[in-house]
Amino acid sequence: MHIPDLLPRLLQGDRRALARAISLAEQGGSQARDLLAGAYPHAGRAHTIGITGPPGAGKSTLVNALALELRRQKRTVGIVAVDPTSPFSGGAVLGDRIRMQPLGGDAGVFIRSMGSRGRLGGLSRATADAIALIDAAGFDVVLIETVGAGQGEVDIARTAQTTIVVEVPGMGDDVQSIKAGVLEIADIFVVNKADREGADKTLRQLRSMLHLGGPPEDGWEPPVLAAVASSGQGIPEIILDADRHAAHLRGAGLADAHARRAAEGELRAAVQELVVERLRGPAWDALVAKIAARQGNPYSAAEELINSL
Amino acid sequence: MHIPDLLPRLLQGDRRALARAISLAEQGGSQARDLLAGAYPHAGRAHTIGITGPPGAGKSTLVNALALELRRQKRTVGIVAVDPTSPFSGGAVLGDRIRMQPLGGDAGVFIRSMGSRGRLGGLSRATADAIALIDAAGFDVVLIETVGAGQGEVDIARTAQTTIVVEVPGMGDDVQSIKAGVLEIADIFVVNKADREGADKTLRQLRSMLHLGGPPEDGWEPPVLAAVASSGQGIPEIILDADRHAAHLRGAGLADAHARRAAEGELRAAVQELVVERLRGPAWDALVAKIAARQGNPYSAAEELINSL
Repeated sequence: MHIPDLLPRLLQGDRRALARAISLAEQGGSQARDLLAGAYPHAGRAHTIGITGPPGAGKSTLVNALALELRRQKRTVGIVAVDPTSPFSGGAVLGDRIRMQPLGGDAGVFIRSMGSRGRLGGLSRATADAIALIDAAGFDVVLIETVGAGQGEVDIARTAQTTIVVEVPGMGDDVQSIKAGVLEIADIFVVNKADREGADKTLRQLRSMLHLGGPPEDGWEPPVLAAVASSGQGIPEIILDADRHAAHLRGAGLADAHARRAAEGELRAAVQELVVERLRGPAWDALVAKIAARQGNPYSAAEELINSL
Repeated sequence: MHIPDLLPRLLQGDRRALARAISLAEQGGSQARDLLAGAYPHAGRAHTIGITGPPGAGKSTLVNALALELRRQKRTVGIVAVDPTSPFSGGAVLGDRIRMQPLGGDAGVFIRSMGSRGRLGGLSRATADAIALIDAAGFDVVLIETVGAGQGEVDIARTAQTTIVVEVPGMGDDVQSIKAGVLEIADIFVVNKADREGADKTLRQLRSMLHLGGPPEDGWEPPVLAAVASSGQGIPEIILDADRHAAHLRGAGLADAHARRAAEGELRAAVQELVVERLRGPAWDALVAKIAARQGNPYSAAEELINSL
């Protein structure tokens, strides 16, 4: 498939073209930028849902269950699984294949793993591009799953319109688990594995922590839902609340604010990637050598380089 | 204390000046850059040691124990505790105070928490600045502790000359715990809480995983050490191996390569921060609005902005 053919095919929802386009975007460069620039105006229709939470919370199983329920409702689903610790990108990661098996043969589902290798501009940039391309290809919902709950992963999850934070019973006892920072970003809380002991306590704790924060500024009170992703229990309720949240964003005029925030983040990332691409060269290398020898410093060198543009 | 006084005082090792300087650097801006530019040539002498690993591995206790041992050896120690989920920066975080208490009154120890709030350029940038300032203030060793093991945290830990990855018994059974990516960055493995059941198995697993990777490219075979940080068991051995690693870096000419890699990262970050600072304004805002309305795209907008410089 030639690169000029990718965009029209992608816009028709061709899965192979979509996979190629995401790989191309991961590599970066001017061809990738042209492709992304062409796709961009066609994106912005999908409901993007980020799923984050500590390792072991069952995020993959939850994402799988959410996708199955969305398919039952005849909505098409893109899944972006972000794993900063994996060196692999692409569709062929064994673990994904296995766990997504019930979705495997379904043309209404597109699954993509994003690993750490590939894009110089970083994983969050590559992930944003992948989401925009899946969106432009016409998928109704994009689920963005992160493996851990580190800063990068939380940042990725919160670029979604709706952010779901997953906890499991007993984790409420661990100071490191539910943090103020994570509380702030959640539009929906899910206590997964809610058939385990301590589920009620975790649900109660989360609700009282939310209550302590007072009434929400944006008028959205994050629901705290119980689920057992492995059996499908509580899954339709999560979809219902995600839809309710999307409607709330639109109704309260918050969707525009979200789009503007996302646009600013994307512009910043694009500027930062492009500026380094432009500045790399002999002068850059010479300054790096000077800085490494402590005969210069990064701040003055940055000024010198930017002034040279 | 006036800003022009900060640099000379900092270079004399004045702790108050150092704390002020780090806060100033966190805020960013041209005064911060001048200060950092002045301090930079005086940094590069400290041995920087990053400590990363999953939550619950006992990293804080380990850092505390390492600092106590270094002090016993009459070396001065800076500790930078990086917590992306904490909204707080500064020295006054309650948790830190409590756990660092045995070190509290010691003038040979400087402790700083880095939270998510503060610097626009991101936590890794602010952390790099803090390390450079502590280094310039003459501390012998800087220990950089990250709370989690997300991408951002791993990136921060690996900017150190020596990276220690901490695991605990039983974690080897969890696929998400020891990943190829984490294996690659470790210069030293520590199995903490080694008095727990399963410690031998975890030690064996780590050693065989390392063995599978074949002989190391850079000639450094990462040791796998057992420790019980809470009792101090195994701590002198960790310091010994960290020193051995620093000597290896110097001996193999790898210290220069590390300095160059660090310099390049710092230059890239400085360029990226400065370019956004320069470009922000009415034209930037107008482009953000156009992108948000899908009447533009970040890639073309970035090009337009950079060409306008």
